[in-house]
Amino acid sequence: MLEASRMTPNAELEKRTENATAFQEIVAFRRSNRSFDPNIPVPESVIENGIRQAQLSPNSSNLQLWEFHWIHSPEALEKFVPLCLNQQAARTAQEMLVFVTRRDLWRKRAAWNLERVKEGIKGEPNGLQKSGLRYYGKLIPFLYAHDPLGFMALIHRLISFFMGLRKPFYRTAGVAGLRIVAHKSCALAAQTFMLSMASEGFHTCPMEGFDELRVKKVLNLPRGAEINMIVAVGRGTEKGEWGPRHRVPTEEVVFVH
Amino acid sequence: MLEASRMTPNAELEKRTENATAFQEIVAFRRSNRSFDPNIPVPESVIENGIRQAQLSPNSSNLQLWEFHWIHSPEALEKFVPLCLNQQAARTAQEMLVFVTRRDLWRKRAAWNLERVKEGIKGEPNGLQKSGLRYYGKLIPFLYAHDPLGFMALIHRLISFFMGLRKPFYRTAGVAGLRIVAHKSCALAAQTFMLSMASEGFHTCPMEGFDELRVKKVLNLPRGAEINMIVAVGRGTEKGEWGPRHRVPTEEVVFVH
Repeated sequence: MLEASRMTPNAELEKRTENATAFQEIVAFRRSNRSFDPNIPVPESVIENGIRQAQLSPNSSNLQLWEFHWIHSPEALEKFVPLCLNQQAARTAQEMLVFVTRRDLWRKRAAWNLERVKEGIKGEPNGLQKSGLRYYGKLIPFLYAHDPLGFMALIHRLISFFMGLRKPFYRTAGVAGLRIVAHKSCALAAQTFMLSMASEGFHTCPMEGFDELRVKKVLNLPRGAEINMIVAVGRGTEKGEWGPRHRVPTEEVVFVH
Repeated sequence: MLEASRMTPNAELEKRTENATAFQEIVAFRRSNRSFDPNIPVPESVIENGIRQAQLSPNSSNLQLWEFHWIHSPEALEKFVPLCLNQQAARTAQEMLVFVTRRDLWRKRAAWNLERVKEGIKGEPNGLQKSGLRYYGKLIPFLYAHDPLGFMALIHRLISFFMGLRKPFYRTAGVAGLRIVAHKSCALAAQTFMLSMASEGFHTCPMEGFDELRVKKVLNLPRGAEINMIVAVGRGTEKGEWGPRHRVPTEEVVFVH
């Protein structure tokens, strides 16, 4: 899988330089755009490819507690304009992708991962496989199982507190912490998707201004699902680019230790 | 800024195909690796470039409520091994990058953005500038200001509820919601960083298993800061790649509307 390391050193260096340059161009090209060209549709293959790449993003414990809802038909797109509070990016979007977290599916996904570990075992499990079995069979259920009254959260907190007194320990943070974990992983996928669109010459606008309750209802999502962000896609216009790309000075956000 | 649209159609198509192919290679190359080659250091320029690209990620209201703490010196790296619970990725990391959310800096960053809007105004403000002034001067303070007793959260909830009865409305979600917003933006930056490393032929491992309290203490961070994730960087080894890249079947996570 470490493709680069199987090349000759020269071919490897050339490939790395090429990809690094391309990535720089992709990052430079990706600007949030709020007004898409109505005459340039986004090929279906571009979105499909972007979703496929998004799915390959790293994510917490490989639980993949995410869903990708592609708003594609003209009727669905029209329905989403008011749900996104009539913002211009939504009004002019050629396609939209709704990134959804599904923290509620942890049991199913842990079981799925456990199956994958078991599949890999021929004869006696090796050390890595043994820890895989423990991880998906014991640790994940311990971290993810929560009751409505918060008893588990309290137990987690107490364990973290006492175990953490003398040496570093993982501090679990209840349901709020798990919500954040799911949103982080989903955002990693969203960024892969947006960069993928940029690599194909299309612009995006990640939107957080929407009516979450109504979006969940329209997508027929259960209570445990949450909307991470809605990404509008299309070919951006000059008008849709709201001024220069302002970033705070590096010394305010980068620290070297 | 829309570079592609200023090329001839043929040159544009060629560039898009090149970048799309490169991006596909980068995504395929990026695998979480848990054991880095001790003999292959990561050039400083590679990390610097990755941080610069991460800073260009989209983020909520351009508040840039993030910080990038580069763990670079051998002493600092050594200190982080136990903080990351002695996991192999930390033990073998050549460099680490700690992604931090700084929700507490919202006032400063809103003021900074307000300055940028004002700078752009020559004479009478146009429509976009007027909404920029309102956005950073009024809306952000309204959404971000919270009191310890949760009165503001209650007011937000009531407004959202009543305003949302008849038409779509943005549902604010108190401090918990703002924490999630900051973590999402920070994760977008983390993914840009990891893909940047992959574009340069290096591997990463995003870690969530660490002692957040102790990490914050070592980095001298205030109470309002949170650790988003810690990314270990190096040249991965075969041993560090834990088996195939399992993803749940597409039909379980992708839905077309």
